Amino acid sequence: MLLVLEFLGVAAFAVSGALAAVRARLDLFGIVVLGMVTALGGGVVRDLMLGVHPPTTLQDWRYLLVSGSAGLLAFQFHPQLARLRRAVLLADAVGLGLFVTSGTATALALGAPVYTACLIGVITGIGGGMLRDLLLREVPLVLRREIYAVAALTGTVVVGIGDLAGWSAGPVALIGSTLVVGLRVLALWRRWNAPLPRDSGS
Amino acid sequence: MLLVLEFLGVAAFAVSGALAAVRARLDLFGIVVLGMVTALGGGVVRDLMLGVHPPTTLQDWRYLLVSGSAGLLAFQFHPQLARLRRAVLLADAVGLGLFVTSGTATALALGAPVYTACLIGVITGIGGGMLRDLLLREVPLVLRREIYAVAALTGTVVVGIGDLAGWSAGPVALIGSTLVVGLRVLALWRRWNAPLPRDSGS
Amino acid sequence: MLLVLEFLGVAAFAVSGALAAVRARLDLFGIVVLGMVTALGGGVVRDLMLGVHPPTTLQDWRYLLVSGSAGLLAFQFHPQLARLRRAVLLADAVGLGLFVTSGTATALALGAPVYTACLIGVITGIGGGMLRDLLLREVPLVLRREIYAVAALTGTVVVGIGDLAGWSAGPVALIGSTLVVGLRVLALWRRWNAPLPRDSGS
Repeated sequence: MLLVLEFLGVAAFAVSGALAAVRARLDLFGIVVLGMVTALGGGVVRDLMLGVHPPTTLQDWRYLLVSGSAGLLAFQFHPQLARLRRAVLLADAVGLGLFVTSGTATALALGAPVYTACLIGVITGIGGGMLRDLLLREVPLVLRREIYAVAALTGTVVVGIGDLAGWSAGPVALIGSTLVVGLRVLALWRRWNAPLPRDSGS
Repeated sequence: MLLVLEFLGVAAFAVSGALAAVRARLDLFGIVVLGMVTALGGGVVRDLMLGVHPPTTLQDWRYLLVSGSAGLLAFQFHPQLARLRRAVLLADAVGLGLFVTSGTATALALGAPVYTACLIGVITGIGGGMLRDLLLREVPLVLRREIYAVAALTGTVVVGIGDLAGWSAGPVALIGSTLVVGLRVLALWRRWNAPLPRDSGS
Repeated sequence: MLLVLEFLGVAAFAVSGALAAVRARLDLFGIVVLGMVTALGGGVVRDLMLGVHPPTTLQDWRYLLVSGSAGLLAFQFHPQLARLRRAVLLADAVGLGLFVTSGTATALALGAPVYTACLIGVITGIGGGMLRDLLLREVPLVLRREIYAVAALTGTVVVGIGDLAGWSAGPVALIGSTLVVGLRVLALWRRWNAPLPRDSGS
């Protein structure tokens, strides 16, 4: 079940990366490559931190297949989407939810303490989207949208508490993911904002 | 003593990241997140290179506490600062000095040869600030300011020589840090510049 | 022979990074630092993925010597180059070819399965140039130029097939490199383009 959630997350992030590349007017190959980098970047960083060599994402061909196919589908069917920017944000929310929780669960399964596993889960979830935005020269979503970091934190804390309480990892990850996606969608829909700093000299 | 120097460096880099985020008009959460990334990024890269899994920075909750508090203080008290840009540069100089020397000393303590430890120390010191500038879409300081790379090099060489001479790591790191901060402050104050390339066709 | 190819790749990437820094009007130290980051970045990422701690690039002083000298030469002699941008692209093509194949061969030699070794080879080849473009705030070449990703793929597949067929690693890497450079030069010279996405609402 964790693996299913992770592949869904890979597909969602690949779509978000590919659609962002379409918006930036990249060509076919740039679109597919950015989809893959967005989809696989978080998992590679997670495995580097956990000392998994070489990263699982580079050993299992299904990661490349899923992310490549999702990128191609986004290239082909993006005109069906009325608003590209909204679609990028939605796909990113789904990817974030699934990666934060499956990243935390993977770190726990590999023996990391709860506190460390939660941080690694957040980094796994945020990493791919951060790479996508960096490569397109945009300020990453996590720095611009309040509920992004808070949503990721909520998801990882749910999985962490579930682990301490001895609940089954699969359903807990599903609940955590749903919570993250729900928070992000609500924040985007209701335009929730965090406080800005007071005005300042230069 | 090394640990104290490292936490001071974490606080300094967190302040530099948070103030840079204030300048870029990010919101509260963006400011705190950028402070944390700047403060913890260098240490994570150092531990990845040394094969410490998971990175110490993610295992010890004090890193998160110190960097988060420093970011919040910067958010709260930045109007007291007359010039944000100068404050960012000063905090960055202190963080650079402390991270270059404690990074080198940590690598030596974990058994890396002197030459490798010096390179890892430089990367540890430069890494966090580079991430900060990249995420805000600025050309990193290390590429723009001559004395940045030279200062980092001076600090790490002091610690390397101290190790070869068998001196005590703590005081040597303190001397190295002071030297780095002094060089950076002098360079900023006196506007030292490195030679530019001769003019060229496109 | 693999080592010779790798050092040639280090020199080529250092030149591409240094010349890109000259174009961006950085000063002497920015030019040398960007040359080193471009030349050594890919190898560090490769070693992190393969679990080589600390990265070979940071243990062997010849990497620093070769990349630093190449950067200094580029600083000194760039006015002899009629067109900086073309020179950056050519040096990048040579570096890409040599790093993709030597990266794949190194991963195979360290026991990675063929599929994983090919992915690591592509990442090794692409990594340095991606860092260079990110640090100068440009959209990386691999996202803009079709034949970039395809050329890298061709080179790594040649080495992968050569390994499965039991051919000698050195000559195979040389053939693969030549193929990559040839494809890139042809693509730049003939202005080959990949299909763009159909038009779309923002």
